[in-house]
Amino acid sequence: MKNALYAQAGGVTAVINASAAGVIETARRHSEQIGTVFAARRGIFGIWDEELIDTAAEDPDEIARLRATPGGAFGSCRYDVRTIDEDPALYARIFEVFAAHDIGYFFYNGGNGSMDTAWKLDQAARKMGYPLISIGVPKTMDNDLLLTDCCPGFGSVAKYIATSIREVGLDLAAMVQGKPKVFVMEVMGRNAGWVAASSALAKEAEDDAPHIVLLPEVAFDHEAFLARVREIAGRLGYCAVVVSEGIKGQDGRFLSERQVEHGYVQLGGAGEALTQLISRRLGFKYHLAIVDYLQRSARHLASRTDVEQAYGAGRAAVEFALAGLSGVMPAVHRLADSPYRWEIQPLSLQDIGNAERRLPPEFIRADGFGLTEAFRRYALPLIAGEEAPEFRDGLPRFARLALRPVPKLCPPPAYPLPL
Amino acid sequence: MKNALYAQAGGVTAVINASAAGVIETARRHSEQIGTVFAARRGIFGIWDEELIDTAAEDPDEIARLRATPGGAFGSCRYDVRTIDEDPALYARIFEVFAAHDIGYFFYNGGNGSMDTAWKLDQAARKMGYPLISIGVPKTMDNDLLLTDCCPGFGSVAKYIATSIREVGLDLAAMVQGKPKVFVMEVMGRNAGWVAASSALAKEAEDDAPHIVLLPEVAFDHEAFLARVREIAGRLGYCAVVVSEGIKGQDGRFLSERQVEHGYVQLGGAGEALTQLISRRLGFKYHLAIVDYLQRSARHLASRTDVEQAYGAGRAAVEFALAGLSGVMPAVHRLADSPYRWEIQPLSLQDIGNAERRLPPEFIRADGFGLTEAFRRYALPLIAGEEAPEFRDGLPRFARLALRPVPKLCPPPAYPLPL
Repeated sequence: MKNALYAQAGGVTAVINASAAGVIETARRHSEQIGTVFAARRGIFGIWDEELIDTAAEDPDEIARLRATPGGAFGSCRYDVRTIDEDPALYARIFEVFAAHDIGYFFYNGGNGSMDTAWKLDQAARKMGYPLISIGVPKTMDNDLLLTDCCPGFGSVAKYIATSIREVGLDLAAMVQGKPKVFVMEVMGRNAGWVAASSALAKEAEDDAPHIVLLPEVAFDHEAFLARVREIAGRLGYCAVVVSEGIKGQDGRFLSERQVEHGYVQLGGAGEALTQLISRRLGFKYHLAIVDYLQRSARHLASRTDVEQAYGAGRAAVEFALAGLSGVMPAVHRLADSPYRWEIQPLSLQDIGNAERRLPPEFIRADGFGLTEAFRRYALPLIAGEEAPEFRDGLPRFARLALRPVPKLCPPPAYPLPL
Repeated sequence: MKNALYAQAGGVTAVINASAAGVIETARRHSEQIGTVFAARRGIFGIWDEELIDTAAEDPDEIARLRATPGGAFGSCRYDVRTIDEDPALYARIFEVFAAHDIGYFFYNGGNGSMDTAWKLDQAARKMGYPLISIGVPKTMDNDLLLTDCCPGFGSVAKYIATSIREVGLDLAAMVQGKPKVFVMEVMGRNAGWVAASSALAKEAEDDAPHIVLLPEVAFDHEAFLARVREIAGRLGYCAVVVSEGIKGQDGRFLSERQVEHGYVQLGGAGEALTQLISRRLGFKYHLAIVDYLQRSARHLASRTDVEQAYGAGRAAVEFALAGLSGVMPAVHRLADSPYRWEIQPLSLQDIGNAERRLPPEFIRADGFGLTEAFRRYALPLIAGEEAPEFRDGLPRFARLALRPVPKLCPPPAYPLPL
């Protein structure tokens, strides 16, 4: 009977810990086949440094509470591994640590890069004859993984963004007075516009916020944008704009790549650039919101669908492992839009790799400033349902793990993991 | 039997509409004493322009739903009135409209300036012999009204800010890698630091976020701040800072009063200034969140205590009116900290006027970077309890009023309300 190792990687989400709970609780229910579930601190770094946690030593109530806890309970990392042929020392160390702790199952919970890592470990283990089942557990608020209907983490940020812009829209409508006012909300999304797009779910009528959604998939056109802002703000007295941090101009450069004259300092991002443009060219009042990490941490407003898929991906990962599958990822497969039905299927990690899924053209309105009904049909089920965390003294009561280190059995690494 | 007029003023909050529901529903229960409840569009502007709504024509379910709807359902305004001696034309017009619609009760729902307006109307009516009961209904997320224990609107923004920084704190803790990272969250509060202070409620242990809270009540000390950031980020790998938009330097100027060299453009606010300082002087990574209107609109995370006080203030306003009180405001009076008990009492508007209540010294930690246990005892009860709005299709289902205009009975005003 082999032990399992679970680790987290990439930007954390509101629900990555729900996947952790899914892995740990499911493995515990199969204690006749899986021994201890260890967790690595800070993803691949914790393996390199042999910094492991014994999850069995944690209070089961706290493990259950991971389902409702944002962040990454064991620490995450950003690290792209090379193949075993390119970086044999990395794999030698990994398998040294795995062997010392009798690891037979590896669950790597992350986005594109992490699915690639799980795949490379699977391949390396085969090549070295190390008996390992390596499974990728998908996670990314960016929703940019290929081949899965959606990514755990996206539904919750989508619900948060759509709720927030609906709420702000009511604020703006109430405060019309004097010069028109433009509200700009900058959201995450460097290359793919899924998060910005989700704001459009808030619209019930044409004049509801958001009035303009700017996506990285559409080259930014200053004049068309200003004309649209002028039309909407002139008519309503206000205009709500949601902008993806990654929008680019016609020249292909990020709007946020600006330098102050003489300056060494890069000031602000896409939202700041837009508000300055609006102020300079239209003379309108403006307000800027940058939701930054709040959006991917807002577990208090998670989508129940998303939580179920995140937990379900963790559970399925263990079930696939017990069925002998390796080099796969539990993917969400959509059976029907409405009522929404889905199931989890194993997909080979080889086909997922480091590619990014962007918004397809049929989801983007012809004018480039909004989303289509097809997008709505796709995304609305993903934000359905609520599953609030427990509250205590007015605030969410999140998991507090003991995170007691497992005694090290290997010699320390000869050098730190090279960055 | 006289009619009533309800109007909203000042920056809206997550719960000002709960006060509207309290006024309207309570008046309906006293239909033997109060006739129609009219609402003015955009506060004093709607009175001047005779733009009134008959709330009796609204679906009672939608009126009830106002309890869970952010924004200002009838439109708000920013307008400081002068006295009747200084501006007789204003009062002549107001009482012309009031008389035409047989208004005997006036409920003005707003902050400092609005309490002053309600008081001046009371005084003007007495002077002119117009039979009017004028009541102020307190509302401000800034929590800066005098003499009331707290202001409806504050508890909800406090809950939102504290929840958000607790969530982000977990995100930051999970992502430690490479250079230290500083997260700055800019919140509202031009002169008083109540909102920034509320972030401190998220702390359960010394190393929990927020690590530094910057208040307008404390002159900003660059070097002390940088030393503190260096210490915390050096130890933990990250540091979470919450900054009030209104912090001022030792020279008494707002930190956000910066000009780009040669520039006509004022870029960014306090948060932007801090991140640039951190980047330039410490070379750390940084992230900036500006929650802007999201914080005062976040009805999805309202404090139940706050909702009950907001609704209760509206209800009490009507009850005071029926008892013959005028020139008063329903104020929250604290009976006990823990368990928290409160009641609503009438206070004369004369004593509230245009003053601002700032954080008292005993709430601010000696080093100026945090809050004391006394603040915690004060503020923790105000964020207690949840009262989520109804959700439909994954998003809050907010009130949609018909807002059908009441036929005008007066000649149009000779000129627009002078700004």
